[in-house]
Amino acid sequence: MNENYDIAVVGLAVMGQNLILNMSDHGIKVVAYNRTASKVTEFKDGAAKDHNNIYGAKSLDDMIAKLSFPRKIMLMVRAGEAVDEFIQQVLPYLQEGDIIIDGGNSNYPDTVRREEFLRGIGIRYVGSGVSGGEEGARFGPSIMPGGNRDAWEFVKPIFQNIAAKTDDRTPCCDWVGSAGSGHFVKMVHNGIEYGDMQLISEIYDIMNRGLALSNDSMADIFTKWNKGILDSYLVEITGEILARKESDGTSTIDTILDRAGQKGTGKWTVVNGAEAGVPLTLISESVFARSLSARLDERLAMNKLIPDSISKDVSEKITVEDLEKALFAAKLISYTQGFMLIDEINKEKVWNIDLGAVALMWRGGCIIRSGFLTKIFEAYRENPELTSLLAAPYFTNIMKEYEGSFRKVVAAAISAGIAVPTLAAGVTFFDGYRTKRLPANMIQAQRDYFGAHTYEKVGGVRGEFFHTDWIGSGGVSSSSYNV
Amino acid sequence: MNENYDIAVVGLAVMGQNLILNMSDHGIKVVAYNRTASKVTEFKDGAAKDHNNIYGAKSLDDMIAKLSFPRKIMLMVRAGEAVDEFIQQVLPYLQEGDIIIDGGNSNYPDTVRREEFLRGIGIRYVGSGVSGGEEGARFGPSIMPGGNRDAWEFVKPIFQNIAAKTDDRTPCCDWVGSAGSGHFVKMVHNGIEYGDMQLISEIYDIMNRGLALSNDSMADIFTKWNKGILDSYLVEITGEILARKESDGTSTIDTILDRAGQKGTGKWTVVNGAEAGVPLTLISESVFARSLSARLDERLAMNKLIPDSISKDVSEKITVEDLEKALFAAKLISYTQGFMLIDEINKEKVWNIDLGAVALMWRGGCIIRSGFLTKIFEAYRENPELTSLLAAPYFTNIMKEYEGSFRKVVAAAISAGIAVPTLAAGVTFFDGYRTKRLPANMIQAQRDYFGAHTYEKVGGVRGEFFHTDWIGSGGVSSSSYNV
Repeated sequence: MNENYDIAVVGLAVMGQNLILNMSDHGIKVVAYNRTASKVTEFKDGAAKDHNNIYGAKSLDDMIAKLSFPRKIMLMVRAGEAVDEFIQQVLPYLQEGDIIIDGGNSNYPDTVRREEFLRGIGIRYVGSGVSGGEEGARFGPSIMPGGNRDAWEFVKPIFQNIAAKTDDRTPCCDWVGSAGSGHFVKMVHNGIEYGDMQLISEIYDIMNRGLALSNDSMADIFTKWNKGILDSYLVEITGEILARKESDGTSTIDTILDRAGQKGTGKWTVVNGAEAGVPLTLISESVFARSLSARLDERLAMNKLIPDSISKDVSEKITVEDLEKALFAAKLISYTQGFMLIDEINKEKVWNIDLGAVALMWRGGCIIRSGFLTKIFEAYRENPELTSLLAAPYFTNIMKEYEGSFRKVVAAAISAGIAVPTLAAGVTFFDGYRTKRLPANMIQAQRDYFGAHTYEKVGGVRGEFFHTDWIGSGGVSSSSYNV
Repeated sequence: MNENYDIAVVGLAVMGQNLILNMSDHGIKVVAYNRTASKVTEFKDGAAKDHNNIYGAKSLDDMIAKLSFPRKIMLMVRAGEAVDEFIQQVLPYLQEGDIIIDGGNSNYPDTVRREEFLRGIGIRYVGSGVSGGEEGARFGPSIMPGGNRDAWEFVKPIFQNIAAKTDDRTPCCDWVGSAGSGHFVKMVHNGIEYGDMQLISEIYDIMNRGLALSNDSMADIFTKWNKGILDSYLVEITGEILARKESDGTSTIDTILDRAGQKGTGKWTVVNGAEAGVPLTLISESVFARSLSARLDERLAMNKLIPDSISKDVSEKITVEDLEKALFAAKLISYTQGFMLIDEINKEKVWNIDLGAVALMWRGGCIIRSGFLTKIFEAYRENPELTSLLAAPYFTNIMKEYEGSFRKVVAAAISAGIAVPTLAAGVTFFDGYRTKRLPANMIQAQRDYFGAHTYEKVGGVRGEFFHTDWIGSGGVSSSSYNV
C-alpha cells in the first residue's frame, strides 16, 4: 500500500496548491489532502493534472497510508483553531517520530504550545514561516522552520530544494531555532516589511510633493536605485508601479486611494516589541501610519481646518542622492531594531536562533529580499556575537557617511510639512542610541519626586538606588535606598 | 452588632492606609482589613491611632458584620490573582446588591471579566482607577470608577468626598462608564503620563545641550511656564527638580543616571493602541524611549563608534518661546491620540464613557493634572460629539499659531543630533492627520502588486476594490474586483 510519498500537504487554498506544485517540480512525491474532498479532485483534475508525482488523498486514512516513515505532514490551513483541530484529527493515525509542520501564519505562542504538547507524546513539530506570497510558494519561497530540531534532517532536503535560491544558489531556508522561533521570525519579517513599505512611501511623498518630480522621473530613480545599494524587490516594484499607466494615459498610482489596509501581523510585531521592552519605534510608526491613513474622513475634516501647504523650498535643501542615503540609513535603523527584537526574545526564550541564518533566509523569495540582507548575513557571520547591526563595521561606516543626508531629509520634510513618521523615528532612534547621556535622568528625577521610585547615580554602583526628599528643605543630600 | 460603617478597605499597604485616613478625615466610617491580622493592629495603633471612625477588623466575619447595607468593600491589594482570591473568599458573606470595588491597577480585561461574573450573581462590581500616588491617596486622589452603574449612587458620596478638587471645588471623580472602563481610562492616563514626562525631558535636553542653559536658568523657565499655558504638576516639579542642589552645590539632576525605569502600564497602553489600530505614536515613542535609555551599556558602546557632537547653531534657530509652544503643541497631539484611543475602545465596547468627565477627573489629584485638562473638559462639554481634540476650535487655533515653532524646534533638534522621539512623533502625526492625500496609495499599490490585496480608487465608491495586473503587458486597465 505504501508508495513512499515524501510528504503530505493539507489544505488546498492557493498557497497550499502552489507549494505542492513547487514540490512536484522538484521531484518530490506529494500527497495532497483537503477536508473537503471535492477540492482534492478539482486540484488533481486542474492545476495538478500533468503532475504524476502528486497523489490526491480521498481521506486521512488514504493520506497516511501513502507516506514513508517518518511521515511528514505539512499544514497549509488557516491559522488558529483549524490547526488544533487537524492535529487532534490526525493524531490517532501517527506513530512516534512522525513530523507535523505548520506552514501557515500562526501566532508564535500557539506554535510554542503545540510543539511542547506534541513533543510530550513523541510527535515532532515544526512551525515554519513561509514568505513570498503565491508567486513565492509556486517558484521558490523563503522558508523559516523552527521547533523540534530532530525533524530538521528529514524536512531539510524538501524545504531547501523548493526554497528560493540566492545568486550563488544558497537556499533561502535554514533551521531557525527551537519552539516557536520559525513563526516568530516570520512575524518580525512582516513587521520589517511594513517598515520598508512605509519608508518608500515617505520618500515617494517627498519626491512627489516636495521636489515636484513626475511619476516617470520617480520611476527612473527607483529603477536606478534598484541597481545600487538599495537593490531590493520593493524598490524594484516601486519603479514599475510608478511607470504604469492606465489605458487613458493617467498613472495608475494616481488613481489609487490613500487608505492602506493591514492583516494583523504588523500589529503583533509592535505588541511583541512593547511587551519585550525593545524600542521598535520605526516598525511601530509604520503600522500606526497605516491606521492613520485609514481614518480618511477624519483626515479630510482636519485638512479643512488646517490645510496642508507644502513649502516650496524643499529642492533647495535636499537632492535625490540625499533621499537615497536617507532611505538606506532608515532601513538600517529599522533592521537594527528588528534584529534587536529577535535577539532579545531569542535570549529570553533560549531558542538558539542563528541571526545570520535569518538574514540568509530573507535574501531571496520573500517580499523584503534585498542585497542589503547579504550584508547583514555577512555581518553576523563575521561576528556572531554582534550586539547590534549598527555596530558592524560596514554599517557603522555607512551610517557615518549617510547620517548628514538622513538628518537633512528629515529636517527638510518636517519643515515643509510632509509627514515622515518612520524616517523621523529612524533618525531620533539613531540619535538616542548613540547618545552618551540622554535626558532620562529627568524622568528618573520626576519618578522619584512624585512616587519615590528611586534612581541610580552617575558613576555609582549599578543597582544601587537612591531617593531624594525633593519637597523637604533644600540642601539635604540624597540618602541611600536600596530596593 | 452592625455599627453602620460606610465602607471597608481591604489591603493595608501605603495606598490603602492613606485612602482610609483620607476617608476618615472626611467623616466617613471605615473598616480596615488585611489578610495578615498584625497589619491591622499595627495600623490601628500607628497611623490610625487618633481616628475614631476607623475600625480594625479581626476577620472577614468581623469586617462584614460592621458594614451597613449595601455593603461596600474596596480592594487595595496587588493587581492580579490576589483580587480573584479575595473575591472568592468574601463571596459567601455577601448578599444581593452588595458592592465590591477594585481600587488597584488592574488590567482592564480582568475587570471586565470580574464585573460580568459578579453581575450574574447579583453583586455590583466597580473597577476604579486611583491616581496621585501616596500623597494623592492621603489628601485627594483622582478617582475613575467604572463598572456596574447601579453601584454609583452608593459609592459617589464617598469617592467625591475624598477626591481631589479643582479650584472651583469640583471633585476629580465622576462615573466613567460600564465594565472595565475605569481601569481602562486609568491605563490611558498612565500612558499619557509617560508621554508628558518624555516630552519634558526632550525639551530639557534641547535647553541643556542645544542652548547650553544652566540648570538655574532652566529652573526659572519651567517655573515661569507653570504660570502660563503649560500650567501643570509635571512642569512645576521639573522647575523644582532643576533648582535642587546637593549639599556640595552640584545640581541633583546632574547626579542622576540616565536610565529610566517603568512598571508596565505604559506598555499596556501601547499594546492597546496597536491592537485597536489607533495611531498612538507619541505615547509609544515615550515608552520605547525608556526602553532605549535602559540599554545603557549598548548606548555607550555605540557612542564610542559614532560619538554625538551637538552642532552649536541651535540657539540661532530657536528661542525659549519656541520651546514652550512646541511642548504645548506636542502635548496637544499626545492627548489627541490618547482620547482617540478612549473614543475607539469606548465605541467598540459600548461603555458609554463621557470623555469630558474623563478630562475633569484628571484636572486634579493625579500626576498629569494641568490647566490644559480644563480646556479639554470644556471642549467636550461644548461638543460631546467632537471627533478629535485637535478639531475643537480652541485647539485648532492654538495649533495654527504654534505649528511654526513646533516644526522649527523638531527640525533644529534633528539637525543638531539631539534625540527627540516624541516631539518628532508629534509633528509627523500632525502632518499625517491633516494631510489631504497621504502616500498610502503607494502601500496599496505594492500590496496589490505582490499579494493581489486590491485597492480602492480615488473618487470611487468606498468598499469597491480593484486589482491591477501589474506584471502583465502595459496599458491594461484595472479590472473591478470586489472582495
